[in-house]
Amino acid sequence: MSMLGKQMQFSWPITIYYEDTDAGGIVYHANYLKFFERARSEWLTHLGINQSKLLAAKLGFVVTKAELDFVKGAQLEQKLKVVTKLEKAARASLLFVQELQDDTGALYCQGKIKVACIDMESMRPCAIPKEILKEFTCGS
Amino acid sequence: MSMLGKQMQFSWPITIYYEDTDAGGIVYHANYLKFFERARSEWLTHLGINQSKLLAAKLGFVVTKAELDFVKGAQLEQKLKVVTKLEKAARASLLFVQELQDDTGALYCQGKIKVACIDMESMRPCAIPKEILKEFTCGS
Amino acid sequence: MSMLGKQMQFSWPITIYYEDTDAGGIVYHANYLKFFERARSEWLTHLGINQSKLLAAKLGFVVTKAELDFVKGAQLEQKLKVVTKLEKAARASLLFVQELQDDTGALYCQGKIKVACIDMESMRPCAIPKEILKEFTCGS
Amino acid sequence: MSMLGKQMQFSWPITIYYEDTDAGGIVYHANYLKFFERARSEWLTHLGINQSKLLAAKLGFVVTKAELDFVKGAQLEQKLKVVTKLEKAARASLLFVQELQDDTGALYCQGKIKVACIDMESMRPCAIPKEILKEFTCGS
Repeated sequence: MSMLGKQMQFSWPITIYYEDTDAGGIVYHANYLKFFERARSEWLTHLGINQSKLLAAKLGFVVTKAELDFVKGAQLEQKLKVVTKLEKAARASLLFVQELQDDTGALYCQGKIKVACIDMESMRPCAIPKEILKEFTCGS
Repeated sequence: MSMLGKQMQFSWPITIYYEDTDAGGIVYHANYLKFFERARSEWLTHLGINQSKLLAAKLGFVVTKAELDFVKGAQLEQKLKVVTKLEKAARASLLFVQELQDDTGALYCQGKIKVACIDMESMRPCAIPKEILKEFTCGS
Repeated sequence: MSMLGKQMQFSWPITIYYEDTDAGGIVYHANYLKFFERARSEWLTHLGINQSKLLAAKLGFVVTKAELDFVKGAQLEQKLKVVTKLEKAARASLLFVQELQDDTGALYCQGKIKVACIDMESMRPCAIPKEILKEFTCGS
Repeated sequence: MSMLGKQMQFSWPITIYYEDTDAGGIVYHANYLKFFERARSEWLTHLGINQSKLLAAKLGFVVTKAELDFVKGAQLEQKLKVVTKLEKAARASLLFVQELQDDTGALYCQGKIKVACIDMESMRPCAIPKEILKEFTCGS
């Protein structure tokens, strides 16, 4: 059952290609993390936040924790969507809940993904730029 | 700090190649799940268990849960190892604790990975073949 | 310079994510083959051809040859497109020319990709189903 | 049939894991490029050449051309090897011939891979450092 509440959320379509599957005939489990990251990246883009510029300024968002439930194996050519919600925003990290669903709302994979803002030179946590934090939290 | 106790464990070397890294200069987070899966596969092979034969018999091991802590970003050309321990063996699932470490024991990524035995036709859980369960548990 | 002529062609958008890049800061070379395969898959879908059904009937399209020119490294967050043209259709194989371009037509990667129709049980070439061949060639 | 002559060559073992395969039951075609890149990286390492140091000095080896023949699909758990030969060394590029073979010499994939030395800031070709060129050519 979906953990997503009524907060601000972002939906991004995913199509399953050969590259995503394995010899078991379903999506290789590590690839769900790629789908989730694509969805978070698109949300950033949608909010007007440019990751390349952040990277040029030696700032990066790095995944520090992930809890994944692989509920149902997605198959070749399926049209799915990742629904992403910001669960919690802290000074130097964001916690997302993300779900890969089909059009009926059936759940394929659910993840709680913690992302930290990192100074890419020292590789240490640093405060998330205020304008980014504002974008994420103004609507939630 | 390592969660690994004195139980039976299996160590497998991993070298970081370009394919594993991303534009942040460190290993792309989803790829740690690949390293862990390689290590579990090699442990099966080491125990004389053939996954292709299982698959031909419509049996597969499918990851159903993963909890990952990304502690430190691994970098290009590093020589690391995955240390794998069987935490718990149930009728239809196995719980592994896996750690990506360097030679000094420094921790890069830690995972708790739950693997279920699945009938690949019905995609339903089924009992792990006894000879496999025996191999894993006789030494632990 | 583009090798694409005036024949029937299919365009598919590609966005560059972290998963596609490597520590060199640009797209990892093998991933251009993934982009090309996505574009061919979407063309099949667009033509009403279902690869999962083909696979269930033990038929698969398998890449047998690829010639790739990596012209310019694509970067994180770029919005590009793959333009695909059918260069030649034979009884058991198709030859595609594919180009990854940006909106100005600048070329990032060009590929000549030969795809054979394979009986997935014997792994031998077999004739492409007529209805598929017709879809591809009626317009070219 | 093998194109490899009697020149200096380097052999590197590859094991096929789930991550390498797709729903067709064999290795996903793009992944052969990964195997070839691993083998070239290991050859560099074997010759005492450190790619991370090159990258820190803003030098990178970038694949500029690839011609691939996918001869036979490799399968889960196969133990194979990549045999790599330097075909030609120029001022700013190297041409490798690489073959994925099994122990009987049966060929799975053959590639001609052109690698250029690139200034990673200007993204322009530059001369291969002499000490690297010497390592590759002294024995061939």
